[in-house]
Amino acid sequence: MKYPVGIVGFSGYGGAEAVRLLSRHPHFEPVLLSHRADSGDGPKLVRKSTIRRALSSPDSVASEGLKAVLLATPHDVSMELAPQFLNAGATVIDLAAAFRLPTAADYKTWYKDDHTAAHLLPGAVYSIPEFHRERARGAKLIANPGCYPTAANLAIRPLIEAGIIDRKAGIVCDAKSGVSGAGRKATLKNSFCEVTENFSAYSILKHRHVPEVLMVSGLQESEFSFTAQLIPIERGILETIYFRLAKPLTSAEIVEIYQKQYGNEPFIRLHEAGTMPDLHGVAHTNFCDLGVVSDPASGRCVVVSAIDNLVKGAAGQAIQNLNLALGIEETAGLL
Amino acid sequence: MKYPVGIVGFSGYGGAEAVRLLSRHPHFEPVLLSHRADSGDGPKLVRKSTIRRALSSPDSVASEGLKAVLLATPHDVSMELAPQFLNAGATVIDLAAAFRLPTAADYKTWYKDDHTAAHLLPGAVYSIPEFHRERARGAKLIANPGCYPTAANLAIRPLIEAGIIDRKAGIVCDAKSGVSGAGRKATLKNSFCEVTENFSAYSILKHRHVPEVLMVSGLQESEFSFTAQLIPIERGILETIYFRLAKPLTSAEIVEIYQKQYGNEPFIRLHEAGTMPDLHGVAHTNFCDLGVVSDPASGRCVVVSAIDNLVKGAAGQAIQNLNLALGIEETAGLL
Amino acid sequence: MKYPVGIVGFSGYGGAEAVRLLSRHPHFEPVLLSHRADSGDGPKLVRKSTIRRALSSPDSVASEGLKAVLLATPHDVSMELAPQFLNAGATVIDLAAAFRLPTAADYKTWYKDDHTAAHLLPGAVYSIPEFHRERARGAKLIANPGCYPTAANLAIRPLIEAGIIDRKAGIVCDAKSGVSGAGRKATLKNSFCEVTENFSAYSILKHRHVPEVLMVSGLQESEFSFTAQLIPIERGILETIYFRLAKPLTSAEIVEIYQKQYGNEPFIRLHEAGTMPDLHGVAHTNFCDLGVVSDPASGRCVVVSAIDNLVKGAAGQAIQNLNLALGIEETAGLL
Amino acid sequence: MKYPVGIVGFSGYGGAEAVRLLSRHPHFEPVLLSHRADSGDGPKLVRKSTIRRALSSPDSVASEGLKAVLLATPHDVSMELAPQFLNAGATVIDLAAAFRLPTAADYKTWYKDDHTAAHLLPGAVYSIPEFHRERARGAKLIANPGCYPTAANLAIRPLIEAGIIDRKAGIVCDAKSGVSGAGRKATLKNSFCEVTENFSAYSILKHRHVPEVLMVSGLQESEFSFTAQLIPIERGILETIYFRLAKPLTSAEIVEIYQKQYGNEPFIRLHEAGTMPDLHGVAHTNFCDLGVVSDPASGRCVVVSAIDNLVKGAAGQAIQNLNLALGIEETAGLL
Repeated sequence: MKYPVGIVGFSGYGGAEAVRLLSRHPHFEPVLLSHRADSGDGPKLVRKSTIRRALSSPDSVASEGLKAVLLATPHDVSMELAPQFLNAGATVIDLAAAFRLPTAADYKTWYKDDHTAAHLLPGAVYSIPEFHRERARGAKLIANPGCYPTAANLAIRPLIEAGIIDRKAGIVCDAKSGVSGAGRKATLKNSFCEVTENFSAYSILKHRHVPEVLMVSGLQESEFSFTAQLIPIERGILETIYFRLAKPLTSAEIVEIYQKQYGNEPFIRLHEAGTMPDLHGVAHTNFCDLGVVSDPASGRCVVVSAIDNLVKGAAGQAIQNLNLALGIEETAGLL
Repeated sequence: MKYPVGIVGFSGYGGAEAVRLLSRHPHFEPVLLSHRADSGDGPKLVRKSTIRRALSSPDSVASEGLKAVLLATPHDVSMELAPQFLNAGATVIDLAAAFRLPTAADYKTWYKDDHTAAHLLPGAVYSIPEFHRERARGAKLIANPGCYPTAANLAIRPLIEAGIIDRKAGIVCDAKSGVSGAGRKATLKNSFCEVTENFSAYSILKHRHVPEVLMVSGLQESEFSFTAQLIPIERGILETIYFRLAKPLTSAEIVEIYQKQYGNEPFIRLHEAGTMPDLHGVAHTNFCDLGVVSDPASGRCVVVSAIDNLVKGAAGQAIQNLNLALGIEETAGLL
Repeated sequence: MKYPVGIVGFSGYGGAEAVRLLSRHPHFEPVLLSHRADSGDGPKLVRKSTIRRALSSPDSVASEGLKAVLLATPHDVSMELAPQFLNAGATVIDLAAAFRLPTAADYKTWYKDDHTAAHLLPGAVYSIPEFHRERARGAKLIANPGCYPTAANLAIRPLIEAGIIDRKAGIVCDAKSGVSGAGRKATLKNSFCEVTENFSAYSILKHRHVPEVLMVSGLQESEFSFTAQLIPIERGILETIYFRLAKPLTSAEIVEIYQKQYGNEPFIRLHEAGTMPDLHGVAHTNFCDLGVVSDPASGRCVVVSAIDNLVKGAAGQAIQNLNLALGIEETAGLL
Repeated sequence: MKYPVGIVGFSGYGGAEAVRLLSRHPHFEPVLLSHRADSGDGPKLVRKSTIRRALSSPDSVASEGLKAVLLATPHDVSMELAPQFLNAGATVIDLAAAFRLPTAADYKTWYKDDHTAAHLLPGAVYSIPEFHRERARGAKLIANPGCYPTAANLAIRPLIEAGIIDRKAGIVCDAKSGVSGAGRKATLKNSFCEVTENFSAYSILKHRHVPEVLMVSGLQESEFSFTAQLIPIERGILETIYFRLAKPLTSAEIVEIYQKQYGNEPFIRLHEAGTMPDLHGVAHTNFCDLGVVSDPASGRCVVVSAIDNLVKGAAGQAIQNLNLALGIEETAGLL
């Protein structure tokens, strides 16, 4: 017997990834929620899909027996739907940014829009499970972290806490993402001919994901230089993080700091000192891979953090959080 | 009447680009130099190419009337051939690294190999024309700069000279290159399936091109953090350069500093303050595009520098240098 | 002194290619025609482009001294503009399909729309120069052929005329195109993530370009099976053409038939018998490359035809036709 | 309790896919077999992989308790290893072509090499499970079909058997494959810069996979025109198959023929009449998707067949065969 879990926004890239992961999850089965029960733009097959479908309505919680609902929706839609599904008794995991920042004022500052469900913010749990799993257990509303901040915080926070970064010199996070990070929609900017054989930067220094990094790592905005860039690939985020050492540590000593923090974390993989992850290593997985190259003599250090933006950066982490929220083994369906 | 210019290594990516550029040059025509006059792995056409071919031998300088020879060859081959072609009376433009660093000891340090033509180093002219054109005019042996240092120095040197960078905090140069930068050869690492949908870093902090940046910009190695990364595209280099401002300047004020340095430089294009170049803008051109985003309040600044690694980063700049060496208009064949 | 040539639709892929080609043409210079003289979505550079701009209006013919106008516009816009520019005295080359088919009824059949400038159809000249150059010389209105029919007809027509094809068995043309063939616009279907790592067929048996093939080759629709497919690349068309031989000819004998037809045609390149062209060989050129593999014993034969869809398939052939229309050397600006 | 299954050649693309599939199989677990127990070129992680490893030796069958061994090896290595592992008591699934053709003479004809284990040919079972599952059950040596023939035969055989193809006019199979089909090795031809933005044909009319199509479909070589072409993607095969109808059937009627043949086959998906599969639909799955467009009036018909060359075309079908050979549910680990 598997618990049904609703997904709104299942035709987007993150939502579709959630459907794939839930379809092979040992304890859950996906239920596609949409306004018309037959909507969808997938292939027209003679033998219809057996994945369950239902109306995207709070009534479906009772009628379908939904334990939880994943919202892979635009921010404003999440604000509208989250209260409804919560009231109907479902646990809600929001993959949008609606409940990530602590206050409506923060949301307004970074997202340039009013928050229409601000009463839920105090009870919402922001969870990168490697840092916040205790508060995610049993939570009713989880704000699933952004893709860039997931990769950044998993790399930065242990080093900030260890006090090995010269924060006055600033931390640089040069981030690169595959195009699926921009969502599934028709835009000229993300059309094939504009992206292929190209590479471009956007949102320099002022990306909406910056406050999540500051919130989790404890950095100040003035200490953190962040640039998001588009790689002509479908999926993956690689962040190259530069800082100056507060003390002369070797690559191996810094890997050891990570090792102490992460121990046997199932989804964190440390590369041997001096070797670096790439995107093939994490594609279609929930892993975050970390590598370090340090030059203690000059104080320069580079860390690379790699994830699949649709898995650890979205649907995979959402299911990791869902497992925690519903008291299931955290790794279920993800290894 | 066009001057014949020899090219050794014409089947590599840089060499082939030089052939293309010379084929439509108003004053030069290419002569393919190889050990066997019929070598090559191009398409087998019924109507043979009309591009001239000759033996790669110093005798060809006289027999073919070569004014100059471009060496698009491995470093050690350049060391072997440069003295021969110089002795035969040709001007030599070396696209390899054989004559870029001032001493054989420098070469040994960064390239882990002995220099076999060290006697030519004192007379070799390293030339990014925007900085060194006066010494390139009439030169007999020109060391064409590396691709990464061309993009880096065109961005960094004017700002170092203007004294606006807080050098103690260090400069980060996060460099990304298309795969043609690795040369035309059979390697598993650069095979299609290993590269596509991937992104990876290599030569972190210790890339062979670092000394060229230090030499031209005046930076110390300890001040400069450089990482080279592979984009799954054929051509193009984009470098994202981060530093902290020594004084609170706006993006527009920094663009103005570039404007003063570069004035009407034909191959430097400045983006309006706050807008950034991409690789499509420079592909198949000899341009270097520069863009600036500055946050004077916090002192953070980001500069993006974009070139085509095969043109401004190799063959195009080589012809720009060739034009200077032979007293032709500098832009001939390049606009 | 260069003749000004107007381009409407210069921000599309075909139009932009025409601007690039005209910018280095020895006898023409481009004039960008748009409704607002400052429109465009290119990079925002400090030093503005020196390419001339004018209003897209028949008055510009006189005020700018335009000899000709290229229409890289939607079909209906071409129908609207062609009469206006013709009346104002300019030669018109239409890159759309507005004037390709002989009658308004044909247009209605294949394009499902009414023709609004049918009075121009009798005087319009459809020109693949290798077949129709005599009628293109001095023409006032030229219908530039579609990309797929250009590659198909250059391969098929000489063999039909030589009578070597068993037409009863049918001819198969399996065509593959880069994504730029679909035009520059925001569609989900052509967004990066939908296209990359994918391959798909569309318009099977009923593509709009079929009537152009029938018209030029003399085939009947029932004899010709055509499928258009999308390759995840920017540019290039490769067509694999299959038929059964009416007589047992070797690959070399079929290459010889082409050789007789095309002789020294500047833009047709024949591959040696048994070797095949690819898209790299024609990218950014006006060439059509042809290769043949025949098995006379079984009567099976395969011909591959490759072009750059934006050059020989659009802007390059348009300039080839423009050269003919204005009495300039046919290859000017194209080699 | 899971049965251990050995894999030789696990670092190739097909072998690695088999490891991935076996790692989440409910009844098997992979054991990597290599000459040195620590060989491999994967990422260097601090926490070592828990996948079992053993020497590639018949002794490992007993010591590791291997029920079966998958050979993802070159043809000649398969001929050497298959007898050894069979003698040691393991079931062998060969992903190479060593045991696909009925006689050593056939092998010599198509692979230009001597067969060194011809005594095993009579007992080897060639199995596309949709056609041959009865003989695969309990088999000791299974020849896993080639990727191209799998896609071709699943499309062609039911139509041949239904007698709807005009065989005298010939069948065209225009096949396109991702680059992983060429194996994991360093070649210039498959290097990134040679493949990206390119498209090329190879092995026209005489590909080694042709005899497998003839053997399963019953076609004669003279009736079948096959061309293999390289798409610049990692994985996927799409074959566009053209023929003339022996009787005027609609698309829907032809889909119905497939429906009768395949009924509830778990890995065959039929597209509704007139709609076509693409490679995204089958990527990372064991499905073969089929679509039909027919024009009964003219007798032309096009069928598209799509598979993931590494799954249904290699490792997935191998595990489907392994399930059959060992008496496990055929779909185990594959849905």
